[in-house]
Amino acid sequence: MLEPTALQTDTQTLIDAINNMWILVVTFLIFFMHAGFAMLEAGQVRSKNVSNQLTKNLLTWSIGVTVFFLIGAGVDSLVGGAGFSPAFAAESAADWIGWLYGAVFAMTAATIVSGAVAGRAKLRAYVTYTILLAAVIYPVVSGMAWYATGLLGADGAVGSAVGMAFTDFAGGTVVHAMGGIAGLTAAWVLGPRIGRFNDDGSANVIPGHSMTFAVLGTLMLAFGWYGFNVGTSAIFNTENAFLADQLGRVAMTTTIAMACGAMGAGLVAWAKTGKVDTLYVANGLLAGLVGITAIPHTTTWWGAFLVGGLAGAQLPVVFSFVEKRLNIDDVCAVFPVHGSAGVLGTLMYSFVATEAWNGFTPDVGFMIEGFIAQFAGVAIIAAWTVLTTGLIWGAFKALGQARVSREHEQEGLDGSEHGIETYPEFGDEGTAVADGGTVRTDGGVVPADRRSD
Amino acid sequence: MLEPTALQTDTQTLIDAINNMWILVVTFLIFFMHAGFAMLEAGQVRSKNVSNQLTKNLLTWSIGVTVFFLIGAGVDSLVGGAGFSPAFAAESAADWIGWLYGAVFAMTAATIVSGAVAGRAKLRAYVTYTILLAAVIYPVVSGMAWYATGLLGADGAVGSAVGMAFTDFAGGTVVHAMGGIAGLTAAWVLGPRIGRFNDDGSANVIPGHSMTFAVLGTLMLAFGWYGFNVGTSAIFNTENAFLADQLGRVAMTTTIAMACGAMGAGLVAWAKTGKVDTLYVANGLLAGLVGITAIPHTTTWWGAFLVGGLAGAQLPVVFSFVEKRLNIDDVCAVFPVHGSAGVLGTLMYSFVATEAWNGFTPDVGFMIEGFIAQFAGVAIIAAWTVLTTGLIWGAFKALGQARVSREHEQEGLDGSEHGIETYPEFGDEGTAVADGGTVRTDGGVVPADRRSD
Amino acid sequence: MLEPTALQTDTQTLIDAINNMWILVVTFLIFFMHAGFAMLEAGQVRSKNVSNQLTKNLLTWSIGVTVFFLIGAGVDSLVGGAGFSPAFAAESAADWIGWLYGAVFAMTAATIVSGAVAGRAKLRAYVTYTILLAAVIYPVVSGMAWYATGLLGADGAVGSAVGMAFTDFAGGTVVHAMGGIAGLTAAWVLGPRIGRFNDDGSANVIPGHSMTFAVLGTLMLAFGWYGFNVGTSAIFNTENAFLADQLGRVAMTTTIAMACGAMGAGLVAWAKTGKVDTLYVANGLLAGLVGITAIPHTTTWWGAFLVGGLAGAQLPVVFSFVEKRLNIDDVCAVFPVHGSAGVLGTLMYSFVATEAWNGFTPDVGFMIEGFIAQFAGVAIIAAWTVLTTGLIWGAFKALGQARVSREHEQEGLDGSEHGIETYPEFGDEGTAVADGGTVRTDGGVVPADRRSD
Repeated sequence: MLEPTALQTDTQTLIDAINNMWILVVTFLIFFMHAGFAMLEAGQVRSKNVSNQLTKNLLTWSIGVTVFFLIGAGVDSLVGGAGFSPAFAAESAADWIGWLYGAVFAMTAATIVSGAVAGRAKLRAYVTYTILLAAVIYPVVSGMAWYATGLLGADGAVGSAVGMAFTDFAGGTVVHAMGGIAGLTAAWVLGPRIGRFNDDGSANVIPGHSMTFAVLGTLMLAFGWYGFNVGTSAIFNTENAFLADQLGRVAMTTTIAMACGAMGAGLVAWAKTGKVDTLYVANGLLAGLVGITAIPHTTTWWGAFLVGGLAGAQLPVVFSFVEKRLNIDDVCAVFPVHGSAGVLGTLMYSFVATEAWNGFTPDVGFMIEGFIAQFAGVAIIAAWTVLTTGLIWGAFKALGQARVSREHEQEGLDGSEHGIETYPEFGDEGTAVADGGTVRTDGGVVPADRRSD
Repeated sequence: MLEPTALQTDTQTLIDAINNMWILVVTFLIFFMHAGFAMLEAGQVRSKNVSNQLTKNLLTWSIGVTVFFLIGAGVDSLVGGAGFSPAFAAESAADWIGWLYGAVFAMTAATIVSGAVAGRAKLRAYVTYTILLAAVIYPVVSGMAWYATGLLGADGAVGSAVGMAFTDFAGGTVVHAMGGIAGLTAAWVLGPRIGRFNDDGSANVIPGHSMTFAVLGTLMLAFGWYGFNVGTSAIFNTENAFLADQLGRVAMTTTIAMACGAMGAGLVAWAKTGKVDTLYVANGLLAGLVGITAIPHTTTWWGAFLVGGLAGAQLPVVFSFVEKRLNIDDVCAVFPVHGSAGVLGTLMYSFVATEAWNGFTPDVGFMIEGFIAQFAGVAIIAAWTVLTTGLIWGAFKALGQARVSREHEQEGLDGSEHGIETYPEFGDEGTAVADGGTVRTDGGVVPADRRSD
Repeated sequence: MLEPTALQTDTQTLIDAINNMWILVVTFLIFFMHAGFAMLEAGQVRSKNVSNQLTKNLLTWSIGVTVFFLIGAGVDSLVGGAGFSPAFAAESAADWIGWLYGAVFAMTAATIVSGAVAGRAKLRAYVTYTILLAAVIYPVVSGMAWYATGLLGADGAVGSAVGMAFTDFAGGTVVHAMGGIAGLTAAWVLGPRIGRFNDDGSANVIPGHSMTFAVLGTLMLAFGWYGFNVGTSAIFNTENAFLADQLGRVAMTTTIAMACGAMGAGLVAWAKTGKVDTLYVANGLLAGLVGITAIPHTTTWWGAFLVGGLAGAQLPVVFSFVEKRLNIDDVCAVFPVHGSAGVLGTLMYSFVATEAWNGFTPDVGFMIEGFIAQFAGVAIIAAWTVLTTGLIWGAFKALGQARVSREHEQEGLDGSEHGIETYPEFGDEGTAVADGGTVRTDGGVVPADRRSD
């Protein structure tokens, strides 16, 4: 109970309450990004694979957050140099506020991968990979980047050697690039969907089934992203200073970067084809958000224009490169949106940081040192992610457990993995589910064997 | 105005402001659950009944909240022993913050029913029932459960007799089980949709028209549920203590229970059919949330695993029981999701409550006494709900006002009750609306008679 | 850093922190209204124009917020009498919190227009208009209405002459009526879609492609609207008084007005056609919200019933008038929903304001003076909006840049402006895109020329 005579206590308690209320609210917003990812990805896949994608999203959150509770949060603290402190062993129930806050970032990284491997990965392979990501792959990354005593922190081996900590405010590399790189690696090992590339290496477009769901997901993600970026700033810092400047700066740079991302991608697409591609505009908006996520607190409006605009502009270029040159089937473009955009923004840190941020002079020496620190961090995180993801999916592949059968892929994963049709009354994909035996292709009334006991 | 010299006032005002801001934010989140319910239910009905379902959701909120303003809130306080205090007679405008907070819980109970009676209930019957629910049925339940002087409260007749108040933190029974039981009762009186059951009692599946909308609704509901559960805790209690422990505990148990609900339902469905049913995973996630809603502040992580896992696992079993044994057509599975899951979690109270919660020893005596208190509360609430709901829908039925005609049901309620098609360009349900005379079945341009004056 | 001995500073800093946290949270909610508008509008257009509508929404936000950052916010302050203070020249980074708060209101006005000109406006015309709206048209309106020294403010020319400032709490006229009137004007200049009206002036209905998306958008908007209206109140005022009464009053009147708007529109539609039109109920809910938006802090529950009910009831009537008498093709009914409803509520100000609000006596003198002040404000804002919008779209038309070609309109703007299909696997609109050459109408695998370089 607050003692009106104990002013020090009063003020500290009020500040703690304000900070914790903020953390809870932004955590809820970040959680909502799962709904955004579900819609964004569902819209970008064929109707025969929609329920599979939705199931992956539901299970990513459900299984992933459980694993992160039991193991991942402990690995994060262990790698960060603070000892193995799993969430179930929290000293105080109040600590679970901070755990959930960390968990929604972790699950964002996890869910990105599902967009890359859509339409052909086996559900059990994907789930197994998600368990490993939540337990080890992501916590190692967050642990080495977000603790002063982690590998990339100010007191860590790399940070000390470079003389500067790796800077990643809200997870432009730790969360998004990590997820995007993992997705690209998994998609590469897995191979493309049937019909995605021709024998001569030329590519075919397999359009998603609903642009409406894709854009809905985009805007839901942008909403949640305000929690992700602005919510990475506390209201008061540990010295009880009110962080109005930081909150305002992050809110503005996040807004400008997303706007310029959408414009950048739209302009490049327009220049290439003469039309403004809706999906590029939407994904460009997200790429702008990803781009600024590592550094929204360090730069100002012109930096946000630059980072957001470039993050958007690189999207169609990198997408084409991945498709045409690498022949990797990254279904929902998670690498150009989350991977390369995140890396780009992270590497631009020292070139767009302003004196207003922390009083330093942004001279050439700082730019070089900053670039080295950022490059080292990105390289280490990328290497770890590619290595672990490649090994795991390589093992699945070697065991014949990575992909569904050719027949199941062609009929769609909704039928083969889940025994259902997403839209039993629409479209003509129904016939493909016929061999499932339980769902009639005309969408009509059917025997309830599916749920029989 | 705050007087800087009046410290006591300052602190109290700041605490009040923080509590009220929190209540407003979580109220908005809980309101958003109506959008979630609308999508969840729309996705689970045939395309010919979607607009009917959406209209019911819009009217549930609009009519229900008005009735709760004029009457319901007064009945709640009356039954709770605090006199008839309707919201329009609030002493201070500030009291309306608390009224709206109560209203969004009430409207959650109301909207659950619409999912059970989908596809055949007359709109006017449903609306009449909703008015009675908002005015009397729900307020009697919340009044007897959530006031110390209510029937089930510490000072109420039953609470005194048992020696322990009925515990229901955020409405696992008061809101969700009440809604789920009311839905089951109404669906039972109403009878099944045409074709849902065969003459020999065997069941047919009538699949919903869009799994995407159903899963979208699920995730929107989970987002709002953080407001529902965590938001049931204040930031500061009435003695001005900061409730960090309670907030953290509820945030964690809510998260773990929803995750385990999804896994529990998915695993049982997988064991029964060899496939991971998307809708069971989604509804299992919701059942996990419902399960923990009565007791998120009393237990810890292993309790949340247990409650959430069991709430999810019972879903396919109870669904089959309702369908195969009772032959009740609960279209959106509101009983297994909201009814039995809510009862289950409420009854588990004394078996999973921890010493950390309030310092008691969770021994056998406590378990028995707690079970009696919880069972009594559930039994009384269930009996009241079944009785009132059964009488009202029975009266509708006796008057021939409960169901639409056989022809209208077959053509779909969108045409017969609303004169529209939900998707005029897709599917083949259009022909059924032909006799409405105002909407062309080819989705083309039509005379504007529909809106003529 | 807070000094525990400096009580004055502590209290002020805590109050500032609470107010700023609130502003950030409600700003995020208001931003989310863009997702709501995107869905509401997408649902109300033909499937061949959905991606075009979605793109307009994405670009309205992206381009609009950038222009408002560079120019619009400066014009707002200039017209308000506070000098040209563009956002990029903010004195403190903390000021960007307030800028973003203003920007989300500005962008709401901008996005309303896209619903009126759907299905035939050229993308580049729409984008150009949006730039001018964000740079000048809206900022002039907000500047003259929302500064004491603005034209309509207490110290402005009109406000002084009338003896009373123009009252518009959250933008019932400044944002919504402005957007609705602009939309109507643009739609009038642009002319109707092909087939919307017959040679004899009678109208045809062109139904939207998905009622589900329209209702989803409605409920998302209502969620964001709580931020819009309640969030227009601070938690503490500039004299540090806790505004609990105002917050409670606005939360209640907003809720009641939206409920009565839905009921009012539904009842009128029912009286006219014997059916409860889903879209009228949904748009009526929004009209109720628009109606109360100017005056939620001044009235009480019976005023909210009246304003909301009338705002809903006028919807079908005004819609028919615009359609049947004016023969204007306002595709998403933005004038009856945002225009006339906003004007109605604004003009009702002095007739429903209560003594509880600010202690005045609501006598006839006040009613007349208030009506004059409100009428003057509405007239000036409407004249400015009609004039500028009419001139701009008139110029586009004179240059042959306002509308897409007849062929492109018939095939759909998704193909001609964006080179895509929204639903490549559903419906039969696909054939219309055939001449785009890059998207196969069967929704199958196609050469990736669209994104080639």
